[in-house]
Amino acid sequence: VARIRARAAQNTSASLRLGIGDDCALLGVEPGEELAVTTDLSIAGRHFRLDWHPPDAIGHRTLARGLSDLAAMGARPVAAFLSLGLPPALVRIPKGRKPWFDGFLNGLLKLAELHRVPLAGGDLAESPVALADIVLTGAVARGKALLRSGARPGDILYVTGSLGGAAAGLVLLKELAEAFEQTPIHRSPWRIPDRLKAALAPHLYPMPRVAQGLWLASRSLATATIDISDGLSTDLAHLCRESGVAAEIDAAALPIGPGATRALALDGGEDYELLFTAPPAARIPRGIAGVPVTRIGRIVRSRKGRPQVVLVDAQGTQALAPRGWEHFW
Amino acid sequence: VARIRARAAQNTSASLRLGIGDDCALLGVEPGEELAVTTDLSIAGRHFRLDWHPPDAIGHRTLARGLSDLAAMGARPVAAFLSLGLPPALVRIPKGRKPWFDGFLNGLLKLAELHRVPLAGGDLAESPVALADIVLTGAVARGKALLRSGARPGDILYVTGSLGGAAAGLVLLKELAEAFEQTPIHRSPWRIPDRLKAALAPHLYPMPRVAQGLWLASRSLATATIDISDGLSTDLAHLCRESGVAAEIDAAALPIGPGATRALALDGGEDYELLFTAPPAARIPRGIAGVPVTRIGRIVRSRKGRPQVVLVDAQGTQALAPRGWEHFW
Repeated sequence: VARIRARAAQNTSASLRLGIGDDCALLGVEPGEELAVTTDLSIAGRHFRLDWHPPDAIGHRTLARGLSDLAAMGARPVAAFLSLGLPPALVRIPKGRKPWFDGFLNGLLKLAELHRVPLAGGDLAESPVALADIVLTGAVARGKALLRSGARPGDILYVTGSLGGAAAGLVLLKELAEAFEQTPIHRSPWRIPDRLKAALAPHLYPMPRVAQGLWLASRSLATATIDISDGLSTDLAHLCRESGVAAEIDAAALPIGPGATRALALDGGEDYELLFTAPPAARIPRGIAGVPVTRIGRIVRSRKGRPQVVLVDAQGTQALAPRGWEHFW
Repeated sequence: VARIRARAAQNTSASLRLGIGDDCALLGVEPGEELAVTTDLSIAGRHFRLDWHPPDAIGHRTLARGLSDLAAMGARPVAAFLSLGLPPALVRIPKGRKPWFDGFLNGLLKLAELHRVPLAGGDLAESPVALADIVLTGAVARGKALLRSGARPGDILYVTGSLGGAAAGLVLLKELAEAFEQTPIHRSPWRIPDRLKAALAPHLYPMPRVAQGLWLASRSLATATIDISDGLSTDLAHLCRESGVAAEIDAAALPIGPGATRALALDGGEDYELLFTAPPAARIPRGIAGVPVTRIGRIVRSRKGRPQVVLVDAQGTQALAPRGWEHFW
C-alpha cells in the first residue's frame, strides 16, 4: 500500500479532495455535473495471460478498459480505484529484477498520467489467480452524457480510428508466445522484439478515445454512443437493442486496421474505438482530436423477423450475428 | 446480467440517474456535497469459504464491508457497484435447487434494500476462484466527512456496539464445519442449526453502522473515525498513525460481545463497529440510533520509543501490538 500511495501521490487533480489512506476517497463534482461510474474486472487466463502479456501492458489495458467506458459517456475522468488480487510471487522482489507488480503499476499509472486521472484508492488481497478490478469515475454536465439508447432510424453510423488492429495484434502475440515456448533457452515473453512493437501496440497499448467522447458530448452531436470493447458486431447489437432500432453496415466503408481482416474488424474486439450515431444533418468532421472518423452505415427501423444488424457489400445483404467477445452468462 | 438487472431495478434512489445497461452509471450529487468512494475485494479462501459460509451470508458480508467504509466517513449511501468473478458451477442452475449465485445476490440485495442503496452497475466474468469486488459511493456535506486524521491528545475514545462477537462466531462456524466433515452423509453446511443462528449472526450478518456515522457527521462531534474491520488493535493503530497521536485503552471498559473473549475483542476483526474520538467537552450519548456507545480510553501524545497503543488493566500498563487481520503486503 505504501508503494502505491507514494507512486500515486505524484498525480492528483482538483476534483480529488482526499486520496489513499482513509476509509473512502472524497471527490468533488462541479454544480450541474453528474458523476459517471464504471467497473471492469480483468482476470488472468481470461482477459490477459501472465505468460503472454508484459506486466506494463496488463496495467495499461486494465485502465484503458475503464477509461474507454468514460469516453463512451463523454465524461471527463476524475479518479480511478484499483482492487488487486495477486499471488505472492508477483509482489515479491526477485533477485536483480523488479517485481511483476511494479511493471503492472507503471503501465497503469503512465496511462493515468496521460489522462490526468489520479489513482485515489482501492484494495489489495492475496489471490490464487491474478486479477484487477478497475473503477473509473468521471464528470459530465447534467443531461449531456452520451447514452446507448438515443439512436433513431435515419441516423448515420460512425466509428473513430480503425478496427481489427487489436485482434490482429493478439493473433501475432499468440504466435510469438508459441514460438518462445519452442525456444530451448527460456527467454522472457515480456521482451517484445522491436520490429514487432508497432503491430502489437493496438492490442497491448490501446488508446481510449476520451478526447473524442468529450468533444461529442460538449457539442451534443451524437444520438447514441458505445465503445467497441467486445467487437463491432456485438457492441452494435447492444446499441441497437438499447435504442430499439436496427442497423446496416457498408462493408466497403469499414476502416480496417493494419494487419487486420474484415472478420477481425467486425468481431475482433478490444479496439476501444467509439461507435456513435448522429442525424444526417449533423456536421461530423473527418477527424476529432487527431483521430479519423469514418461513416460506416446507417440506423434503420427495427422489424420483427428481420436481423438487427446487416452487412451490405457487392454480393448483397447478409445478417451480421454478434460474434464478438463472449461473456459467459 | 438480465437476472441482476431485473432484481436490482426493484431498488432505486433519487441520486441514481442511470443504472445498469449503459457504459457507465450516472449519479447526481447535491450542491455542497462530496462523493465518498470505496472498494473492497473479497476472495474465496481468504475472505470467505464456499464450504463454510451460506451464499446469502457471503453476499451480505460483501456489501457490509463497503457500507461500513461509508459509515466511517459519515456518508449517506448513494449506489453500489459489483464486480463478480465466478466459476461456472456457481452460476448454473442445479436440479431442484437454486444456483449459488441467486443466494449470494439475495443476501447482498436484502442488506442493500435495508440501507436504500441501489445496485447500479458492475462487471461479470468467469474465474477459477470465486471473488467479489464491491464499490460503494456515498454523499457527505463538504467539510463534514469523518476522517482518520483528526484525533488530538486529550480526546476520549469511543466504540459503538460490542467487540469480538464476529470472531467468536467464526470460531463456532469453523467447529461446525469440521463436525459436518465428519458426518458420513453429506449435509449442506449452508443450513445453520436454528439454535446457533444468534451466536453466528455477528459473523455471518454484521450490521454496518451507517446511521451512527451519519449522526456523528451531522453533529460534527467526532475528531476522528474508523470502522473496525481488521480488529481494534490494528484499526486503532491506523487511526493513531494518520492522526500522529497515541492511545490508551481501559481493558475493563471494553464492551466484549456475547461468546467473545478480551483477546477476540482486541484482535478479532470483522465487527464493523465504529471507533471514534471526541473532545472531553463533547456530549456523546450512551447510544446512537439504537446502538450503545462505550467510552473505552483516551488519546495521548505520541512519544518516540513509547508504544503507540497501550492497554491499561488492574495488572498495569502493557503495549498493545496490532494483531488483527494481516494484509499480506
